[in-house]
Amino acid sequence: MTASAQPPRHIFLAPAPRAVADIFDDSDLARLRALGTLTIHEGGPVTDAIFEANAHADIMIGQFDMPAERLERATHLRAIINVEGNFLPNIDYPVCFRNGVRVLNVSPVFAEPVAEVALGMAIDLARGISRSDRYFRQRTEKYGLDANHDAFTLYRQNVGFIGMGDLGRAIVPLLAPFGMRVRAYDPWLPPMWLESIGCEPASLETVLRESQVVFVVAGVTSENQGFLGADEFSMMREGAALVLVSRAGVVDFEAMMDFAAKGRIRVATDVFPDEPVPADFRARDIDGMLLSPHQAGALERALREIGKRTVADAELIARGLPPAMCKVAQPETVARFRSKPVSKS
Amino acid sequence: MTASAQPPRHIFLAPAPRAVADIFDDSDLARLRALGTLTIHEGGPVTDAIFEANAHADIMIGQFDMPAERLERATHLRAIINVEGNFLPNIDYPVCFRNGVRVLNVSPVFAEPVAEVALGMAIDLARGISRSDRYFRQRTEKYGLDANHDAFTLYRQNVGFIGMGDLGRAIVPLLAPFGMRVRAYDPWLPPMWLESIGCEPASLETVLRESQVVFVVAGVTSENQGFLGADEFSMMREGAALVLVSRAGVVDFEAMMDFAAKGRIRVATDVFPDEPVPADFRARDIDGMLLSPHQAGALERALREIGKRTVADAELIARGLPPAMCKVAQPETVARFRSKPVSKS
Amino acid sequence: MTASAQPPRHIFLAPAPRAVADIFDDSDLARLRALGTLTIHEGGPVTDAIFEANAHADIMIGQFDMPAERLERATHLRAIINVEGNFLPNIDYPVCFRNGVRVLNVSPVFAEPVAEVALGMAIDLARGISRSDRYFRQRTEKYGLDANHDAFTLYRQNVGFIGMGDLGRAIVPLLAPFGMRVRAYDPWLPPMWLESIGCEPASLETVLRESQVVFVVAGVTSENQGFLGADEFSMMREGAALVLVSRAGVVDFEAMMDFAAKGRIRVATDVFPDEPVPADFRARDIDGMLLSPHQAGALERALREIGKRTVADAELIARGLPPAMCKVAQPETVARFRSKPVSKS
Amino acid sequence: MTASAQPPRHIFLAPAPRAVADIFDDSDLARLRALGTLTIHEGGPVTDAIFEANAHADIMIGQFDMPAERLERATHLRAIINVEGNFLPNIDYPVCFRNGVRVLNVSPVFAEPVAEVALGMAIDLARGISRSDRYFRQRTEKYGLDANHDAFTLYRQNVGFIGMGDLGRAIVPLLAPFGMRVRAYDPWLPPMWLESIGCEPASLETVLRESQVVFVVAGVTSENQGFLGADEFSMMREGAALVLVSRAGVVDFEAMMDFAAKGRIRVATDVFPDEPVPADFRARDIDGMLLSPHQAGALERALREIGKRTVADAELIARGLPPAMCKVAQPETVARFRSKPVSKS
Repeated sequence: MTASAQPPRHIFLAPAPRAVADIFDDSDLARLRALGTLTIHEGGPVTDAIFEANAHADIMIGQFDMPAERLERATHLRAIINVEGNFLPNIDYPVCFRNGVRVLNVSPVFAEPVAEVALGMAIDLARGISRSDRYFRQRTEKYGLDANHDAFTLYRQNVGFIGMGDLGRAIVPLLAPFGMRVRAYDPWLPPMWLESIGCEPASLETVLRESQVVFVVAGVTSENQGFLGADEFSMMREGAALVLVSRAGVVDFEAMMDFAAKGRIRVATDVFPDEPVPADFRARDIDGMLLSPHQAGALERALREIGKRTVADAELIARGLPPAMCKVAQPETVARFRSKPVSKS
Repeated sequence: MTASAQPPRHIFLAPAPRAVADIFDDSDLARLRALGTLTIHEGGPVTDAIFEANAHADIMIGQFDMPAERLERATHLRAIINVEGNFLPNIDYPVCFRNGVRVLNVSPVFAEPVAEVALGMAIDLARGISRSDRYFRQRTEKYGLDANHDAFTLYRQNVGFIGMGDLGRAIVPLLAPFGMRVRAYDPWLPPMWLESIGCEPASLETVLRESQVVFVVAGVTSENQGFLGADEFSMMREGAALVLVSRAGVVDFEAMMDFAAKGRIRVATDVFPDEPVPADFRARDIDGMLLSPHQAGALERALREIGKRTVADAELIARGLPPAMCKVAQPETVARFRSKPVSKS
Repeated sequence: MTASAQPPRHIFLAPAPRAVADIFDDSDLARLRALGTLTIHEGGPVTDAIFEANAHADIMIGQFDMPAERLERATHLRAIINVEGNFLPNIDYPVCFRNGVRVLNVSPVFAEPVAEVALGMAIDLARGISRSDRYFRQRTEKYGLDANHDAFTLYRQNVGFIGMGDLGRAIVPLLAPFGMRVRAYDPWLPPMWLESIGCEPASLETVLRESQVVFVVAGVTSENQGFLGADEFSMMREGAALVLVSRAGVVDFEAMMDFAAKGRIRVATDVFPDEPVPADFRARDIDGMLLSPHQAGALERALREIGKRTVADAELIARGLPPAMCKVAQPETVARFRSKPVSKS
Repeated sequence: MTASAQPPRHIFLAPAPRAVADIFDDSDLARLRALGTLTIHEGGPVTDAIFEANAHADIMIGQFDMPAERLERATHLRAIINVEGNFLPNIDYPVCFRNGVRVLNVSPVFAEPVAEVALGMAIDLARGISRSDRYFRQRTEKYGLDANHDAFTLYRQNVGFIGMGDLGRAIVPLLAPFGMRVRAYDPWLPPMWLESIGCEPASLETVLRESQVVFVVAGVTSENQGFLGADEFSMMREGAALVLVSRAGVVDFEAMMDFAAKGRIRVATDVFPDEPVPADFRARDIDGMLLSPHQAGALERALREIGKRTVADAELIARGLPPAMCKVAQPETVARFRSKPVSKS
């Protein structure tokens, strides 16, 4: 069970659009350097010349293009770590899988901060926290029971998840102390798996019809764009809350605003079809919406954790062990995600 | 272990300022009636004549005056249940203790709803949820990291409690999934007790200096009015959050607003020195304050739970068993509380 | 919220049948002494003369007789702390209640150690741990599945409690990670209370019929001696497990041995009708019984905790605050318990 | 997010040394059949002829030989599911990884039952449960404190893990209610990962020196055979407990028995160098050892779960999704495991 000595590795680090200083502290960089040699490239694209100079790297960290030609030249390559939260089409994944090259991203760093905001939003919609604060500033607040005519509590409430990836799995434990009944719809996961984390597997319709709070945490894939529309919102309970913290692309945003505007459901969203949001976007004036400027995951602490997870997995890979801290691209699913590159998510 | 048959009891119910219909549903009233005879008085004070007609009651439910003279006349009396959340000076407590009369209130019904709002407020202050929503409506929002320059997360953060009564004990489990280090200051509880619920006993100063979030959940007593003032707030960390959900009387409200106005600390409060709050109260325009109109406990569900807890304890008392669901007045502490009657808290 | 200075108190400590050195360490004694004056009496009964010399004590610690006459002479008395786990008939309780004298015992110190053993016993009966070890020593062990023909797992199993006092409440959290459905029968507690700790209130019959593991944690009262007999055991599931860790008096021990001997149920017990158990007691040779010599609570660590809880509550009482660490005698129930004095439980 | 229609699959099921009827119930088989065609082979080896007849299978379930030649002929093959708990040398893994063939085993089914026994063993060693039962049968039992001279409790104790794979991760939550300090040594996992499940990363020496209970849950690899020997046991605390539930090969069994025999440490083991254990194996007569005949994982319920996990992952794979319920072979580690085939573990 002892770790045998390892040959020196070469690490190529070109973290654009992130900056090295934003994601790695000195000790992280020292750990990377301790693996062998470290070449850092910042300030411009990874040109073919730059790539050639680093083609012998064992581990490449960044988001630069890795088409088949580059992959075939990278004969020592063991892993590519994207210091962003998505798998992008910059890489020829089939070649990576065939050649045994691990492809990783750092999406786990966003799970906790986004889960925290999602819970805060759910409590806010249930209990009217930001709305009452707004009324206070408008001198129109009411007090006590009069402020709570439509309030509900999360305790022992029905809650539902649409999607149950890393983000949902980070929200579920936050709900445990509230004694909620948790249903989840995720067509990529077997019922047995959902049960193992304390959720009841359910159809999309059941989640929508039975839940007082619905967390939408599904990523956008080639198959689910806009799959939550007027038909789905109309299945929701009167006054139920929808918390959207994954991608705007999974909902029909216009329909969602319609339902919020007429008070049919309550909505909180951290994501929008276009960001920055146009000044005349009508969501800005809907009383029943809680608006968050794509800030749920964007904590400095999350950025720092990008560095730490990257280094931890680089160390494992250099020792010939499987990665443990980053998200690992799976051959079955990586091609289905349709995220557009986000400059800084 | 079987319950022996009980003689019929007389229950006198005069729940003002609450209404019977607000706190008891039909099944609750049926259970009360099953105990023996039930007399309900609503619509005016409990005059001496009305009291005389019910002086033989075994259990009295309400907030009417119970001076020594009335207590001495109530020779069958086993319990007085106040369907409010405080022990008020309407009762001669020493006589009750001497005569073996249990005095109860229903404060436990408020613990969960207030704890939920307290957590929502803490997340809001940490992550800027309502502030960002406000900026959105003002068309001044920023995005992603730019919105988060002063954000922090609750995960693995230091948190402190001032007071650790029923309310604090309801908040602590909600924080558990965040992996926080929890300190508590409560001079009425031994360190060993605080440790038993997973808190580190600490001085007031340590709680203030070391916590990123401070929950003020102490009730007002004869000894602690305004005990949190400028000296105490100046011990807090730059940018730390104060969540006040018990009584306005424990803080120097002016000093608290000063510290919030200059951005030295963040403040959320559900209580105010005067309610309704005057239109020109400066808190209304302080960006770093989150204002809640005494709504944290005032849920309809809490009102319904008042009835259920009252009935459950009335049943136990009628069977000669100790109450289990309401707050029981303790001879050592009941006289120290200085709550003013709240019409509907 | 500050603690005002307190006048010096007098503490009288006569802990027989315990010894001072067994339950108090130096720092505990120092804390007692810091309250005022401390008189320790060991090595013989508390005679009238000795009592007279200490009748002015504010707090008395021990198990000596406190009839009405002594209580009336003890005009400063605020509390009697029995450093044992039961309320015994050595005290005139009604006088104490009338005079506002708190009566405490230290039963909470036994809850954790007994709960731990109860869980260990439940796993042992379910999985055959000690039985397989016995077969190993007899050279008759079987392996793998062959050893497990009647094994079951606690995971997601039905479990039931008979009684839900301090001990049951200490067992419940230990079961939480197993995802069990927990039913509880306790006629002294309202259904609402049982639900608040995650149990389903149930009748005795339902607990017996539906549970794969039954924990008997009820104390003996004037009403429940031997209430678990052949009729009750015959309601249990074939092969279900009974774990008895409170008092032998609540079961018909002969009937219980009958059911265990014929393999109808599995039984673990820490208590016996007579201790020491006679050499020819047939339980000793029943394969389906797990026998524990009243050792579940008798840990040195529990003895040390007696001192710590005693001191913590003495400090509170000296400051005019309610006790928090010991069990407080309740007027409704104290007379119902029928424990015989146990020399060292 | 909808599941598109899938072409029919061919499933080849040859589960020896398991029997189909032991691991699949009717509904499981019906689900397998619903995927397309199902060919079942029992009652003899998978000869080349039988293999040829099924070489077009999409999913193969069993433990038969899969050398490169067979793999190259299996052009539709997406996954091989071994219905045992180990990865054996029957498969040419590098060819599988290159060709994108998933290799799975069902080790997760054993994690819960073994964790349960491991906890039961730890409590047993700490509290002397089976030893006291043995003394009872020998008429040599002592009572109360006299039975507990060397007992300790798990509550708030230091505990350590050697290895932190699936099994350790199943034990950790069972310990949570005991408030233990948990250290873990696992050279294959980064400190950050161990922290994320609530463990303190530690060296092997620290785990041994600081823990009152040590769980040995490491599998045997090419690098760690017999790595726990006299030097390591001598680092352990006097009277500390060692619970061995993974593989006998990781310890020097003779040295372990020496330390147990002289009372230096307490030992519980579910595994032995040779099974069945010889009649004269000295462990049988060591008072400080708890012996379990490789029964910790061998529950019928675990066998049934083998079928359910196998079917769930077969369904996912047939739909083009990644497996979620079985253990997935990783290219970095699969070759390091050195388990010998176990007929029925």
